[in-house]
Amino acid sequence: MTQFQPPRGTRDLLPEEMIKRQFIVNTARSVFEKWGFDPLDTPAFEDFELLTAKGGQAIKDEIYYFKDKSDRELGLRFDFTVPAARVISSNSNLQRPFRRYQIGPVWRYDRPGAGRYREFWQADIDTFGSSSIDADAEVVACACEALQKMGISNFYVRINNRKIMNAFLGSLKLDATDIMRSIDKLNKIGEEGVKEELTSKKVSEKDIVSIMKFAKTSSIEKIKEFVDDVEELEQLVDRLKKFNVTARIDMSLVRGLEYYTGSVFEIMQEGSNLTITAGGRYDNMIEGFGGKPTPAVGISLGVDRLMELVQLNFGKTKVDVYIASVDEKSKEKCVEIAQQLRELEINVECDVMSRPLAKQLEYVNAKGIKFSIVIGEKEMKSGVLKLRNMQSGSEKEIELRNLKRVLDVIKSS
Amino acid sequence: MTQFQPPRGTRDLLPEEMIKRQFIVNTARSVFEKWGFDPLDTPAFEDFELLTAKGGQAIKDEIYYFKDKSDRELGLRFDFTVPAARVISSNSNLQRPFRRYQIGPVWRYDRPGAGRYREFWQADIDTFGSSSIDADAEVVACACEALQKMGISNFYVRINNRKIMNAFLGSLKLDATDIMRSIDKLNKIGEEGVKEELTSKKVSEKDIVSIMKFAKTSSIEKIKEFVDDVEELEQLVDRLKKFNVTARIDMSLVRGLEYYTGSVFEIMQEGSNLTITAGGRYDNMIEGFGGKPTPAVGISLGVDRLMELVQLNFGKTKVDVYIASVDEKSKEKCVEIAQQLRELEINVECDVMSRPLAKQLEYVNAKGIKFSIVIGEKEMKSGVLKLRNMQSGSEKEIELRNLKRVLDVIKSS
Repeated sequence: MTQFQPPRGTRDLLPEEMIKRQFIVNTARSVFEKWGFDPLDTPAFEDFELLTAKGGQAIKDEIYYFKDKSDRELGLRFDFTVPAARVISSNSNLQRPFRRYQIGPVWRYDRPGAGRYREFWQADIDTFGSSSIDADAEVVACACEALQKMGISNFYVRINNRKIMNAFLGSLKLDATDIMRSIDKLNKIGEEGVKEELTSKKVSEKDIVSIMKFAKTSSIEKIKEFVDDVEELEQLVDRLKKFNVTARIDMSLVRGLEYYTGSVFEIMQEGSNLTITAGGRYDNMIEGFGGKPTPAVGISLGVDRLMELVQLNFGKTKVDVYIASVDEKSKEKCVEIAQQLRELEINVECDVMSRPLAKQLEYVNAKGIKFSIVIGEKEMKSGVLKLRNMQSGSEKEIELRNLKRVLDVIKSS
Repeated sequence: MTQFQPPRGTRDLLPEEMIKRQFIVNTARSVFEKWGFDPLDTPAFEDFELLTAKGGQAIKDEIYYFKDKSDRELGLRFDFTVPAARVISSNSNLQRPFRRYQIGPVWRYDRPGAGRYREFWQADIDTFGSSSIDADAEVVACACEALQKMGISNFYVRINNRKIMNAFLGSLKLDATDIMRSIDKLNKIGEEGVKEELTSKKVSEKDIVSIMKFAKTSSIEKIKEFVDDVEELEQLVDRLKKFNVTARIDMSLVRGLEYYTGSVFEIMQEGSNLTITAGGRYDNMIEGFGGKPTPAVGISLGVDRLMELVQLNFGKTKVDVYIASVDEKSKEKCVEIAQQLRELEINVECDVMSRPLAKQLEYVNAKGIKFSIVIGEKEMKSGVLKLRNMQSGSEKEIELRNLKRVLDVIKSS
């Protein structure tokens, strides 16, 4: 039989990577909860009609589509925003604001590449029911804290507001969505590229000059030269300051998704074009799904990108201590000690291969387990065992009746 | 637009249920790690050929099948055993034993019913590479501890061994797999039903009597009257005793899956026919997937069933404290206090609706948040706030410069 691999664009996470992802997920969850967001889960697949209702053709092409055996048309979720909007629109008795987080895999049939997968994990927070900029500021500040708690510090926040873009492009009598799509490419194709594209879209020379000048604007004062109402953006900058977050205003920030209606924001890696996390306000989606009009704002962290950014080392295994047995006779004692250490919340592994001692210790090293204990006749007679730090080689003598000391040594290592 | 629901057989988990599932998942994870199992993750979908290679027709009919846009034939995973076997068989450099756990959703297109879903969560542990009964005993004892840590105590363990069944049915010159399928129905269709089915399978009257007698056997001594080699079963009973687990021998325990080769076990709810968790030894699967011959044993907890069994009450929200603002002027102070409490790892929510105080407190009650703090001019002037327990109505005065006391009150509540 042929050997199988994970399907193209997907991957397995072996223990070393999983331990890192669990750190990221646990950190995100704990910070989200500190900021008052509660957990929600939705199915991996949804009605295909729902998934395609708001996302546009680009998303439609990326959905894993299938029928169940009753010919229902389904698709794997491609984000958490659409499923959450469905939950809100069909549960009218949920308290407002409804503040939820959701962490897990989503799927897009995209070109796989370095750090890009067809199955990838997201960690989202959204506040439904509030039209206040306070809610916008909270999700951005909460995301920043999550990154900090993961040991990531070289990032900055850039913000814009769709209302300002719409007002400005409307004043030029241009199709805002179409022009924004071109501005969005500034990072990719550069200023000349965008100008060319706008020319091909039959935008006048004069308007192009004006658009390019607008896109480079980065202060409230300058924006006021183009548009009167900048209140929301001003408020967001102000509220973020209260959370110790300095945001950079960036009129070239569009964000691809067409459903945004107000604030849009991205957290970028300093010194690169990489977006770590992004989001915005989408006040019309719930109503579009048949629910009561419900303003909404949220942000989404890309867990796979965070896997690359988190530099901490968590080791290759969760096992703290391996208890090696000198012979078959001492195995029973090993199990007894293992059980006592587990009661102290220590992660313990015993031999299940009946291997000789030397082979057991080879395995301990290969697996990267930090501590070992060897149990043989001598230890059973003396009631004293040695806890060996496999990295430093140092050993501590510990009495069997005082196994709590194992915990102290592990903690202080 | 029509209102959408989760696809048939699936469900949303709102915060109250998610908090319960997180408790179950976290408890399972922590116990699994204490017993030396490391985390692994695999994609939600696999090659259809892989999924159907070992499971038989019944499983094949239950797979959510689809093609990606390059016409790859894929299917949603229906368990964690097949993906793990793939990982082992294609990563020959993994250390043996490879001890892993995997927790997450799997999918089967089955008839939905009470407590039965098409998307359901499993929590699996498996040890690959060991043929020792020590490994069998470990997974059973570890699963028992996980249940206990979830507050579930009314369960018992029943065990059997496929080798004994094969030896006995082989001695009658009968097709073991076919007869086992009938014995497996004893709980469902009763003794008469099984007898009828065996008659229709052209099993002789004499053999039926013998089979029924065998199926009711529940001690090592009695089994020896049918079969010579009972060593593995005897060992398992013995090893489990060392983990303080009393197992009931049950020769009618078959377990549906055809890939089991040795021990099979189930943890049952006392006084009901409900299986909480089940597993067994499957020594031929990895080789069948093109890997090196690798013995394997594992057990799988049904998380959705555990959701019904866990009786603990975790409340409806993770939010510990709501900080209500008397007016717009005090909002800034609320945010400041919220940030200080978050630094103490307290989960805090502030108003983002600009609602009057009475409405804010209605929301606190409706959402089930346990504590509230009201901030107005008075509190800002005096530097003293009141922490109110919303359930008991009791209030504690706390100085703003001594916010750590909030943590003490929450912890002691």
